[in-house]
Amino acid sequence: MVRERVRKATFMISLGANTFAPVTPVWVVGTYDHDGRPNVMTAAWAGICCSKPPCVYVSLRKATYTYGNLMERKAFTISFPSEAYVKEVDYFGLVSGRECDKLSTTKLTPVKSDVVDAPYVKEFPVVLECKIIKVVEIGLHTEFIGEILDVKAQQTVLNENKIPDVEKVKPLVCSLANMSYRKVGENAGKSFSIGKEIRERKTAKNAP
Amino acid sequence: MVRERVRKATFMISLGANTFAPVTPVWVVGTYDHDGRPNVMTAAWAGICCSKPPCVYVSLRKATYTYGNLMERKAFTISFPSEAYVKEVDYFGLVSGRECDKLSTTKLTPVKSDVVDAPYVKEFPVVLECKIIKVVEIGLHTEFIGEILDVKAQQTVLNENKIPDVEKVKPLVCSLANMSYRKVGENAGKSFSIGKEIRERKTAKNAP
Repeated sequence: MVRERVRKATFMISLGANTFAPVTPVWVVGTYDHDGRPNVMTAAWAGICCSKPPCVYVSLRKATYTYGNLMERKAFTISFPSEAYVKEVDYFGLVSGRECDKLSTTKLTPVKSDVVDAPYVKEFPVVLECKIIKVVEIGLHTEFIGEILDVKAQQTVLNENKIPDVEKVKPLVCSLANMSYRKVGENAGKSFSIGKEIRERKTAKNAP
Repeated sequence: MVRERVRKATFMISLGANTFAPVTPVWVVGTYDHDGRPNVMTAAWAGICCSKPPCVYVSLRKATYTYGNLMERKAFTISFPSEAYVKEVDYFGLVSGRECDKLSTTKLTPVKSDVVDAPYVKEFPVVLECKIIKVVEIGLHTEFIGEILDVKAQQTVLNENKIPDVEKVKPLVCSLANMSYRKVGENAGKSFSIGKEIRERKTAKNAP
Protein backbone atom coordinates (compact mmCIF):
# COMPACT_ATOMS: atom_id res chain seq x y z
CA MET A 1 0.00 0.00 0.00
CA VAL A 2 2.78 2.39 0.95
CA ARG A 3 4.72 1.45 -2.14
CA GLU A 4 1.64 2.14 -4.29
CA ARG A 5 1.24 5.61 -2.76
CA VAL A 6 4.84 6.50 -3.52
CA ARG A 7 4.57 5.17 -7.06
CA LYS A 8 1.49 7.28 -7.75
CA ALA A 9 2.96 10.39 -6.18
CA THR A 10 6.05 10.17 -8.35
CA PHE A 11 4.42 9.22 -11.65
CA MET A 12 5.88 11.65 -14.17
CA ILE A 13 3.86 13.00 -17.08
CA SER A 14 5.51 14.28 -20.25
CA LEU A 15 4.49 17.89 -20.96
CA GLY A 16 6.56 18.43 -24.12
CA ALA A 17 9.32 20.97 -24.75
CA ASN A 18 8.53 24.11 -22.76
CA THR A 19 9.99 26.69 -20.37
CA PHE A 20 8.17 25.49 -17.25
CA ALA A 21 10.46 26.67 -14.46
CA PRO A 22 8.27 27.00 -11.35
CA VAL A 23 9.63 30.46 -10.48
CA THR A 24 11.43 33.05 -12.58
CA PRO A 25 13.15 36.37 -11.80
CA VAL A 26 11.53 39.80 -11.89
CA TRP A 27 14.37 41.99 -13.08
CA VAL A 28 13.98 45.47 -14.53
CA VAL A 29 16.40 46.25 -17.36
CA GLY A 30 17.33 49.92 -17.80
CA THR A 31 18.73 51.33 -21.06
CA TYR A 32 19.04 54.57 -23.01
CA ASP A 33 17.61 54.71 -26.50
CA HIS A 34 19.19 56.33 -29.57
CA ASP A 35 17.98 59.76 -28.44
CA GLY A 36 19.15 59.31 -24.85
CA ARG A 37 15.67 58.69 -23.46
CA PRO A 38 15.68 56.24 -20.50
CA ASN A 39 13.68 53.04 -20.92
CA VAL A 40 12.89 50.12 -18.64
CA MET A 41 11.45 46.67 -19.27
CA THR A 42 10.69 43.73 -17.00
CA ALA A 43 12.59 40.53 -17.83
CA ALA A 44 12.07 36.98 -16.57
CA TRP A 45 14.79 35.36 -18.69
CA ALA A 46 17.63 36.75 -16.59
CA GLY A 47 20.14 35.63 -13.99
CA ILE A 48 23.70 35.53 -12.76
CA CYS A 49 26.07 33.61 -15.04
CA CYS A 50 29.59 34.13 -13.65
CA SER A 51 31.27 35.03 -10.34
CA LYS A 52 34.63 36.28 -11.67
CA PRO A 53 34.15 38.64 -13.36
CA PRO A 54 30.68 39.04 -11.84
CA CYS A 55 28.25 38.76 -14.76
CA VAL A 56 24.53 38.64 -15.41
CA TYR A 57 22.55 37.95 -18.54
CA VAL A 58 19.21 39.01 -19.93
CA SER A 59 17.65 37.24 -22.90
CA LEU A 60 15.43 39.37 -25.11
CA ARG A 61 13.51 39.12 -28.36
CA LYS A 62 14.78 41.28 -31.20
CA ALA A 63 11.32 42.89 -31.35
CA THR A 64 11.77 44.61 -27.97
CA TYR A 65 12.76 48.26 -27.81
CA THR A 66 15.45 47.35 -25.26
CA TYR A 67 17.14 45.03 -27.79
CA GLY A 68 18.04 47.94 -30.06
CA ASN A 69 19.17 50.03 -27.11
CA LEU A 70 21.48 47.24 -25.90
CA MET A 71 22.99 46.74 -29.35
CA GLU A 72 23.72 50.47 -29.61
CA ARG A 73 24.76 51.37 -26.07
CA LYS A 74 26.45 48.09 -25.03
CA ALA A 75 25.34 48.71 -21.46
CA PHE A 76 22.38 48.18 -19.15
CA THR A 77 21.37 48.22 -15.52
CA ILE A 78 19.29 45.77 -13.53
CA SER A 79 17.05 47.40 -10.92
CA PHE A 80 15.48 44.99 -8.44
CA PRO A 81 12.02 46.20 -7.47
CA SER A 82 10.54 45.66 -4.03
CA GLU A 83 7.03 44.29 -3.51
CA ALA A 84 5.56 47.78 -3.27
CA TYR A 85 6.21 48.36 -7.00
CA VAL A 86 4.46 45.30 -8.39
CA LYS A 87 2.00 47.34 -10.50
CA GLU A 88 4.76 49.43 -12.05
CA VAL A 89 6.82 46.31 -12.77
CA ASP A 90 3.91 44.63 -14.53
CA TYR A 91 3.26 47.80 -16.53
CA PHE A 92 6.94 47.84 -17.62
CA GLY A 93 6.32 44.43 -19.23
CA LEU A 94 3.00 45.34 -20.81
CA VAL A 95 3.94 48.34 -22.94
CA SER A 96 6.84 49.21 -25.24
CA GLY A 97 9.28 52.07 -24.79
CA ARG A 98 8.64 52.82 -28.46
CA GLU A 99 5.18 54.08 -27.58
CA CYS A 100 5.60 55.71 -24.22
CA ASP A 101 7.92 56.97 -21.52
CA LYS A 102 7.33 54.31 -18.87
CA LEU A 103 9.25 56.07 -16.11
CA SER A 104 7.46 59.36 -16.57
CA THR A 105 4.08 57.59 -16.63
CA THR A 106 4.81 55.80 -13.36
CA LYS A 107 6.48 58.87 -11.80
CA LEU A 108 9.63 56.83 -11.13
CA THR A 109 13.02 58.46 -11.41
CA PRO A 110 15.73 57.51 -13.92
CA VAL A 111 19.25 58.06 -12.62
CA LYS A 112 22.25 57.98 -14.96
CA SER A 113 24.74 55.34 -13.83
CA ASP A 114 28.15 56.76 -13.00
CA VAL A 115 29.92 53.72 -14.48
CA VAL A 116 27.93 52.62 -17.55
CA ASP A 117 25.89 54.30 -20.26
CA ALA A 118 22.49 53.31 -18.84
CA PRO A 119 19.92 54.57 -16.31
CA TYR A 120 18.59 52.82 -13.22
CA VAL A 121 15.40 53.30 -11.20
CA LYS A 122 16.11 55.43 -8.15
CA GLU A 123 13.18 54.07 -6.11
CA PHE A 124 14.25 50.41 -6.44
CA PRO A 125 16.50 49.25 -3.59
CA VAL A 126 19.26 47.34 -5.42
CA VAL A 127 20.88 48.02 -8.79
CA LEU A 128 23.52 46.27 -10.93
CA GLU A 129 25.41 48.39 -13.48
CA CYS A 130 26.63 46.32 -16.43
CA LYS A 131 28.60 46.63 -19.63
CA ILE A 132 27.91 44.04 -22.31
CA ILE A 133 30.81 41.64 -22.87
CA LYS A 134 29.11 38.96 -24.99
CA VAL A 135 26.05 38.66 -27.22
CA VAL A 136 24.91 35.06 -27.75
CA GLU A 137 22.37 34.25 -30.47
CA ILE A 138 20.21 31.36 -29.28
CA GLY A 139 16.91 31.40 -31.16
CA LEU A 140 13.93 33.71 -30.67
CA HIS A 141 15.91 35.22 -27.81
CA THR A 142 19.34 36.82 -27.86
CA GLU A 143 21.35 36.57 -24.67
CA PHE A 144 23.20 39.69 -23.53
CA ILE A 145 25.92 38.93 -20.98
CA GLY A 146 26.93 41.96 -18.95
CA GLU A 147 29.82 42.36 -16.59
CA ILE A 148 28.69 43.96 -13.34
CA LEU A 149 30.93 46.99 -12.80
CA ASP A 150 29.21 48.17 -9.64
CA VAL A 151 26.29 47.38 -7.36
CA LYS A 152 24.32 50.24 -5.83
CA ALA A 153 21.93 49.75 -2.95
CA GLN A 154 19.83 51.87 -0.64
CA GLN A 155 21.53 52.05 2.74
CA THR A 156 18.27 51.05 4.41
CA VAL A 157 18.28 47.55 2.84
CA LEU A 158 21.81 46.52 3.82
CA ASN A 159 22.53 43.97 6.53
CA GLU A 160 25.41 44.17 9.03
CA ASN A 161 27.81 42.82 6.38
CA LYS A 162 26.83 45.61 3.97
CA ILE A 163 25.00 43.15 1.73
CA PRO A 164 21.40 43.70 0.53
CA ASP A 165 19.17 41.74 2.92
CA VAL A 166 16.28 39.82 1.36
CA GLU A 167 14.03 40.71 4.32
CA LYS A 168 14.61 44.40 3.68
CA VAL A 169 14.75 44.39 -0.13
CA LYS A 170 11.45 42.43 -0.31
CA PRO A 171 12.09 41.32 -3.90
CA LEU A 172 9.54 39.74 -6.23
CA VAL A 173 9.65 36.50 -8.16
CA CYS A 174 7.17 35.34 -10.79
CA SER A 175 5.21 32.18 -11.40
CA LEU A 176 4.46 32.29 -15.11
CA ALA A 177 2.30 29.14 -14.88
CA ASN A 178 0.11 30.77 -12.26
CA MET A 179 0.41 34.17 -13.95
CA SER A 180 1.25 35.74 -10.64
CA TYR A 181 3.99 37.69 -8.94
CA ARG A 182 5.04 36.23 -5.62
CA LYS A 183 6.67 37.60 -2.54
CA VAL A 184 9.71 35.77 -1.23
CA GLY A 185 8.49 33.71 1.69
CA GLU A 186 9.75 32.31 4.94
CA ASN A 187 13.15 30.89 5.72
CA ALA A 188 13.38 27.19 4.81
CA GLY A 189 16.88 26.54 6.15
CA LYS A 190 20.43 27.86 6.28
CA SER A 191 22.35 27.38 3.04
CA PHE A 192 25.77 25.66 3.05
CA SER A 193 24.75 24.44 6.49
CA ILE A 194 21.47 22.54 6.79
CA GLY A 195 22.81 19.71 4.57
CA LYS A 196 25.89 19.13 6.76
CA GLU A 197 23.78 16.81 8.90
CA ILE A 198 23.58 14.36 5.96
CA ARG A 199 27.30 14.63 5.28
CA GLU A 200 28.14 13.97 8.93
CA ARG A 201 25.66 11.11 9.24
CA LYS A 202 27.40 9.42 6.33
CA THR A 203 30.86 10.04 7.77
CA ALA A 204 29.79 8.62 11.16
CA LYS A 205 28.44 5.50 9.44
CA ASN A 206 31.74 4.93 7.66
CA ALA A 207 33.83 5.46 10.81
CA PRO A 208 35.66 2.41 12.15
CA MET B 1 10.12 66.89 5.71
CA VAL B 2 8.54 64.47 3.31
CA ARG B 3 11.10 65.31 0.64
CA GLU B 4 13.89 64.68 3.15
CA ARG B 5 12.47 61.26 3.99
CA VAL B 6 12.37 60.27 0.33
CA ARG B 7 15.87 61.52 -0.31
CA LYS B 8 17.27 59.52 2.60
CA ALA B 9 15.37 56.39 1.69
CA THR B 10 16.73 56.43 -1.85
CA PHE B 11 20.36 57.28 -1.12
CA MET B 12 22.38 54.69 -3.02
CA ILE B 13 25.64 53.27 -1.71
CA SER B 14 28.27 51.77 -4.02
CA LEU B 15 29.07 48.17 -3.02
CA GLY B 16 31.60 47.37 -5.74
CA ALA B 17 31.44 44.70 -8.45
CA ASN B 18 29.58 41.69 -7.04
CA THR B 19 26.80 39.20 -7.75
CA PHE B 20 24.26 40.62 -5.29
CA ALA B 21 20.96 39.50 -6.79
CA PRO B 22 18.48 39.41 -3.89
CA VAL B 23 17.17 35.94 -4.82
CA THR B 24 18.67 33.18 -6.93
CA PRO B 25 17.36 29.85 -8.26
CA VAL B 26 17.72 26.48 -6.52
CA TRP B 27 18.08 24.13 -9.47
CA VAL B 28 19.45 20.59 -9.26
CA VAL B 29 21.57 19.58 -12.26
CA GLY B 30 21.62 15.84 -13.10
CA THR B 31 24.39 14.22 -15.16
CA TYR B 32 26.07 10.87 -15.77
CA ASP B 33 29.80 10.61 -15.22
CA HIS B 34 32.32 8.77 -17.40
CA ASP B 35 31.37 5.44 -15.80
CA GLY B 36 27.63 6.03 -16.07
CA ARG B 37 27.14 6.88 -12.41
CA PRO B 38 24.40 9.46 -11.81
CA ASN B 39 25.41 12.71 -10.13
CA VAL B 40 23.52 15.78 -8.96
CA MET B 41 24.59 19.25 -7.91
CA THR B 42 22.72 22.34 -6.77
CA ALA B 43 23.18 25.41 -8.97
CA ALA B 44 22.23 29.03 -8.34
CA TRP B 45 23.69 30.45 -11.55
CA ALA B 46 20.90 29.04 -13.74
CA GLY B 47 17.81 30.21 -15.61
CA ILE B 48 15.74 30.21 -18.76
CA CYS B 49 17.45 31.93 -21.70
CA CYS B 50 15.23 31.33 -24.75
CA SER B 51 11.58 30.54 -25.53
CA LYS B 52 11.99 29.07 -29.05
CA PRO B 53 13.66 26.65 -28.88
CA PRO B 54 13.02 26.48 -25.12
CA CYS B 55 16.45 26.71 -23.48
CA VAL B 56 17.99 26.94 -20.04
CA TYR B 57 21.54 27.54 -18.91
CA VAL B 58 23.66 26.56 -15.96
CA SER B 59 26.99 28.24 -15.25
CA LEU B 60 29.60 26.09 -13.52
CA ARG B 61 33.22 26.24 -12.47
CA LYS B 62 35.59 23.90 -14.27
CA ALA B 63 36.50 22.41 -10.88
CA THR B 64 33.05 20.84 -10.42
CA TYR B 65 32.51 17.16 -11.16
CA THR B 66 29.44 18.11 -13.19
CA TYR B 67 31.57 20.23 -15.55
CA GLY B 68 33.43 17.16 -16.84
CA ASN B 69 30.20 15.20 -17.11
CA LEU B 70 28.57 17.94 -19.20
CA MET B 71 31.57 18.20 -21.52
CA GLU B 72 31.49 14.44 -22.10
CA ARG B 73 27.77 13.67 -22.21
CA LYS B 74 26.48 16.93 -23.76
CA ALA B 75 23.27 16.55 -21.79
CA PHE B 76 21.75 17.32 -18.39
CA THR B 77 18.49 17.52 -16.53
CA ILE B 78 17.17 20.14 -14.14
CA SER B 79 15.12 18.72 -11.28
CA PHE B 80 13.20 21.32 -9.27
CA PRO B 81 13.06 20.29 -5.61
CA SER B 82 10.11 21.04 -3.38
CA GLU B 83 10.50 22.57 0.09
CA ALA B 84 10.50 19.16 1.75
CA TYR B 85 13.93 18.38 0.24
CA VAL B 86 15.83 21.44 1.44
CA LYS B 87 18.38 19.39 3.40
CA GLU B 88 19.15 17.12 0.47
CA VAL B 89 19.46 20.11 -1.84
CA ASP B 90 21.94 21.82 0.46
CA TYR B 91 23.92 18.58 0.76
CA PHE B 92 24.07 18.35 -3.07
CA GLY B 93 25.90 21.69 -3.03
CA LEU B 94 28.22 20.81 -0.13
CA VAL B 95 29.95 17.68 -1.43
CA SER B 96 31.44 16.58 -4.75
CA GLY B 97 30.29 13.65 -6.84
CA ARG B 98 33.96 12.72 -7.09
CA GLU B 99 33.90 11.67 -3.47
CA CYS B 100 30.46 10.19 -2.96
CA ASP B 101 27.23 8.99 -4.50
CA LYS B 102 24.93 11.80 -3.42
CA LEU B 103 21.71 10.12 -4.53
CA SER B 104 22.45 6.88 -2.74
CA THR B 105 23.42 8.79 0.43
CA THR B 106 20.14 10.69 0.42
CA LYS B 107 18.09 7.65 -0.67
CA LEU B 108 16.75 9.60 -3.65
CA THR B 109 16.13 7.82 -6.93
CA PRO B 110 17.96 8.55 -10.20
CA VAL B 111 15.79 7.91 -13.28
CA LYS B 112 17.33 7.76 -16.74
CA SER B 113 15.75 10.36 -19.02
CA ASP B 114 14.06 8.85 -22.06
CA VAL B 115 15.17 11.74 -24.28
CA VAL B 116 18.68 12.74 -23.18
CA ASP B 117 21.74 11.03 -21.75
CA ALA B 118 21.23 12.21 -18.17
CA PRO B 119 19.37 11.19 -15.00
CA TYR B 120 16.76 13.13 -13.05
CA VAL B 121 15.56 12.90 -9.44
CA LYS B 122 12.34 10.90 -9.29
CA GLU B 123 11.14 12.46 -6.02
CA PHE B 124 11.36 16.05 -7.31
CA PRO B 125 8.08 17.27 -8.85
CA VAL B 126 9.25 18.98 -12.08
CA VAL B 127 12.09 18.07 -14.44
CA LEU B 128 13.59 19.61 -17.61
CA GLU B 129 15.53 17.29 -19.94
CA CYS B 130 18.16 19.16 -21.92
CA LYS B 131 20.78 18.61 -24.61
CA ILE B 132 23.65 21.07 -24.73
CA ILE B 133 23.57 23.33 -27.77
CA LYS B 134 26.15 25.97 -26.78
CA VAL B 135 29.06 26.28 -24.37
CA VAL B 136 30.01 29.88 -23.56
CA GLU B 137 33.29 30.65 -21.79
CA ILE B 138 32.78 33.68 -19.56
CA GLY B 139 35.40 33.67 -16.81
CA LEU B 140 35.56 31.52 -13.69
CA HIS B 141 32.25 30.06 -14.84
CA THR B 142 31.41 28.34 -18.11
CA GLU B 143 27.83 28.67 -19.30
CA PHE B 144 26.15 25.55 -20.67
CA ILE B 145 23.05 26.32 -22.72
CA GLY B 146 20.72 23.36 -23.05
CA GLU B 147 17.69 22.96 -25.28
CA ILE B 148 14.76 21.58 -23.30
CA LEU B 149 13.57 18.51 -25.20
CA ASP B 150 10.88 17.54 -22.71
CA VAL B 151 9.41 18.57 -19.37
CA LYS B 152 8.30 15.86 -16.96
CA ALA B 153 6.11 16.58 -13.96
CA GLN B 154 4.31 14.67 -11.27
CA GLN B 155 0.62 14.60 -12.07
CA THR B 156 -0.16 15.81 -8.56
CA VAL B 157 1.50 19.21 -9.12
CA LEU B 158 -0.29 20.14 -12.37
CA ASN B 159 -2.99 22.80 -12.51
CA GLU B 160 -6.13 22.61 -14.69
CA ASN B 161 -4.09 23.74 -17.74
CA LYS B 162 -1.63 20.87 -17.22
CA ILE B 163 1.09 23.28 -16.11
CA PRO B 164 3.12 22.82 -12.90
CA ASP B 165 1.41 24.97 -10.25
CA VAL B 166 3.70 26.94 -7.93
CA GLU B 167 1.33 26.29 -4.99
CA LYS B 168 1.69 22.54 -5.51
CA VAL B 169 5.35 22.35 -6.56
CA LYS B 170 6.40 24.43 -3.53
CA PRO B 171 9.77 25.34 -5.05
CA LEU B 172 12.70 26.90 -3.24
CA VAL B 173 14.69 30.03 -3.96
CA CYS B 174 17.88 31.14 -2.26
CA SER B 175 19.08 34.34 -0.68
CA LEU B 176 22.84 34.09 -0.83
CA ALA B 177 23.28 37.33 1.15
CA ASN B 178 21.21 35.90 4.00
CA MET B 179 22.66 32.41 3.46
CA SER B 180 19.17 31.00 3.51
CA TYR B 181 16.77 29.02 1.37
CA ARG B 182 13.38 30.61 1.09
CA LYS B 183 9.92 29.34 0.33
CA VAL B 184 7.98 31.10 -2.39
CA GLY B 185 5.54 33.36 -0.60
CA GLU B 186 2.14 34.86 -1.09
CA ASN B 187 0.59 36.19 -4.28
CA ALA B 188 1.58 39.82 -4.91
CA GLY B 189 -0.56 40.39 -8.01
CA LYS B 190 -1.60 38.94 -11.35
CA SER B 191 1.10 39.18 -14.02
CA PHE B 192 0.32 40.76 -17.40
CA SER B 193 -2.73 42.20 -15.66
CA ILE B 194 -2.14 44.25 -12.50
CA GLY B 195 -0.20 46.88 -14.50
CA LYS B 196 -3.05 47.46 -16.97
CA GLU B 197 -4.52 50.00 -14.55
CA ILE B 198 -1.53 52.28 -15.19
CA ARG B 199 -1.79 51.81 -18.95
CA GLU B 200 -5.50 52.64 -18.90
CA ARG B 201 -5.07 55.60 -16.58
CA LYS B 202 -2.61 57.02 -19.06
CA THR B 203 -4.88 56.34 -22.04
CA ALA B 204 -7.84 57.95 -20.26
CA LYS B 205 -5.75 61.05 -19.56
CA ASN B 206 -4.79 61.33 -23.22
CA ALA B 207 -8.36 60.79 -24.47
CA PRO B 208 -10.01 63.75 -26.20
